[in-house]
Formats: sequence, C-alpha cells, structure tokens
Amino acid sequence: MENHIKMIGIIGGTGSLGSGLAQRWLVAGHTIFVGSRTREKACTVVDEIRAKSGITNITGVTNIEAATRGEIIVLTVPFGAHQTTLEEIYEHVQGKIVLDTTVPLKPPRVARVSLPERGSAAAMTQDYLGEHVSVVSALHTVSAAHLINLDHKLNGHVLICGNRKASRQIIADLIEDLGLKGWHAGSIENSAASEALTSTMIFINKFYQFKGAGIQIISEEY
Amino acid sequence: MENHIKMIGIIGGTGSLGSGLAQRWLVAGHTIFVGSRTREKACTVVDEIRAKSGITNITGVTNIEAATRGEIIVLTVPFGAHQTTLEEIYEHVQGKIVLDTTVPLKPPRVARVSLPERGSAAAMTQDYLGEHVSVVSALHTVSAAHLINLDHKLNGHVLICGNRKASRQIIADLIEDLGLKGWHAGSIENSAASEALTSTMIFINKFYQFKGAGIQIISEEY
Repeated sequence: MENHIKMIGIIGGTGSLGSGLAQRWLVAGHTIFVGSRTREKACTVVDEIRAKSGITNITGVTNIEAATRGEIIVLTVPFGAHQTTLEEIYEHVQGKIVLDTTVPLKPPRVARVSLPERGSAAAMTQDYLGEHVSVVSALHTVSAAHLINLDHKLNGHVLICGNRKASRQIIADLIEDLGLKGWHAGSIENSAASEALTSTMIFINKFYQFKGAGIQIISEEY
Repeated sequence: MENHIKMIGIIGGTGSLGSGLAQRWLVAGHTIFVGSRTREKACTVVDEIRAKSGITNITGVTNIEAATRGEIIVLTVPFGAHQTTLEEIYEHVQGKIVLDTTVPLKPPRVARVSLPERGSAAAMTQDYLGEHVSVVSALHTVSAAHLINLDHKLNGHVLICGNRKASRQIIADLIEDLGLKGWHAGSIENSAASEALTSTMIFINKFYQFKGAGIQIISEEY
C-alpha cells in the first residue's frame, strides 16, 4: 500500500469539513497541505493539528499553493465560493484528481434541496476544469462534526461519483482511510443524488432531533 | 388503527411496482382499485392477485376510475406517461393525497441521473395538480422485483417528501404496511434526492452485480 500514500491539498481546509479530513488523513499517513485564503489562517489551524496529533506531515499554505503542491486536490469551500475558487485553482489542478465535496445549499433554506441548473455542483466543476482534470465527488452526507471528532467511529456510507473508474477508486481508498465505506456510484451527473441528500439529511436531523444522519447502502448480497 | 384502512387507487397499477404495492396493501387490509389504460388489462391482473391471495377486496378499473374511487391515489407510471396521466386524473384527485413514485429516467441511460428542469417529477406533479392536492413522493429506491415477491422481507428505508406533514405521515403508515421504514424527508423539492438515487442504485446494482440495492438512514440516535 506504499503507493497509496498521497500528497493531499485541501482547498478551504480550515473549515470543519476540511480540517476533519486533514486530521484523519494525516493519521492515516498522508501528507497534507491545508489551504486557506490567507496562509496565516491555515498555519494557525495546522499548528493546532500538529500539537494535537504529534504528526508534522502537514503544512499551512494558501489555496493556490495547496492546489499546486497536492497531487489530489480536495474542495471544501461553501457553494458561494465555489466558482471563484475554481477560477483560482484552474491552472494548478490540470492533470490531477479533484475531489469536490461542495453542496449547493441555498441559505437560509438549507433543509430544502436546491440543485443548480447544471444538475450538480460537481458537474459544474467538471465542466469548468475541463477534460484534463478528473473530478470526483463524494462526502456530501458525512457530518463534519463527526468527522472532526477523531474518537467518533464513523459508520456512514459515501456515494462516489466521477467519470473515470480509476479516479473513483483512488478516492474510495482515501475514504476508507477516513473510516467510511465508499461506493462507486456512477458518472459525475450522479452527484446530484448525493448533493441533494445533504438537505434531506439536514431536514431529518431537524425533524427527528438527530445529530448526524447519514446513509448506508444495502442490498441482497451485501 | 381502524381509520388507518384506506381506499387506494393505483394509477398504472398493472406494472410490477403498482402490482407489488397492490398485493402488499391488500394483505394489510386496504381496499385497492388497480387502474390501467384499459379495464380489461386491470381485471386480468386483479384476477391473478385474487386467486393468489384469496382476498377479494381489489377491483380492476380504468385509471380514471381508480383516481375517482380511491381516497389515496398512487402514481406508478413511467416518466414518459407522467404528464398525460396527470392531465387525465386532474379533476378526479382534487382534495386528495397523491403519492407519486415516478422516477424521471431517460432510457437508455437509466444509470445516469437526469432530473427534469423543475428539479423533480414530484415537484412537477405538485405544480400541475395545484394546491388542493397534497402530493407526497416516495418509494423511488425500492426494488419492484422485491416488492412483488411477498415472501421477500424488505429492509430498505424510504424517503417521504411532501409539503404537508400530516400527508407525509399517512403515507409513512402505508409504507410501514409494505414492510418498509419511512422517513419524513422534507418538502416536495427534496424529492430530487430520492428520484436521483434511483439511477444511482441502478448503477450500483450493475457495478457490484447486486440485485436490489437500496438505502438505509443511519444516525447517532437511531
């Protein structure tokens, strides 16, 4: 599994989702670049993670530097910052795999599905970044609060969408490193299902007073 | 639970989904009107169900008659027949609950999500039928093949979307009668998640060689 170890650049890595991913992947042995709009903010978060984990294989950088130094680039920015972030990283992610976790929420009605005209945020990402970038989408239904709590045993399943099977598999392995089970879920168009599920999970959390509703895939053979 | 027993009109009830629902609800004590484009076709299916179940509380009728005689109306027609069916039943379903199970598949690429411009088939139904009809959507991720096999113990969970909580609850009770667990999943807009999941499940069935992939909702408190 030596080859499995990756250099991961997390764009918007100081938020709770990005920071949770950073910590769990760091513990799993990957090299992490936490990107933020300012290097200072990224370094503050990284210092905390280093102190907490005792692992130093993590660096605070700008978003552009994270996009440049990572071999796998992970987008964890709010939908409002999605397009400008894509423009910022465009030239630095060519030839790479971009894992897009963006959910097109429309505040304040976040419990109501509101997919973009294009069908999904991830399809927009693939369209914009072009054919030399392999966009994979995943993690929309995973609670950031659970992710950031390393003592929390995750039991959710993750739908992994993307047009290339090999790229989906690389992301599936990274998702397993988080303690989650990933499923090949089809082309990037299918990201609509996973992105729409986020608002549905927010509704379920509110309606049933749950904390981090998620999904599991079941089947006859599973 | 006496009040729980319903008169259910199933539009397109001779297909495998409609027929599976008819049989399971019949066994649960409900009165069923199986609708089809021709009464003859409906009667043929109903004769088989009567012979198999030994229960006679089921009648083969036209779609319009099913819409008229049922108090709960269930749409189980292919997306291609969705709009014409809505036009046909419009005046007969005013004031009722319409359970829409329609999935907007685009053959032959059924494993690829392709939601309508309006966001979901169910939102289109609510728009078209108007405010005096309470549209609820559900059952998109349940395998018709499993449903129709009464010996099969269903273990899937069902997202129930609709703008009125009381209507969603009536459908939740009917879904429980099928042997499934239903979840209040928000407004009719959220049907996009459940409808998009169908193509995702078709992909998963194909990719993993599963037979009837479905979902379960998990949470801390569940």
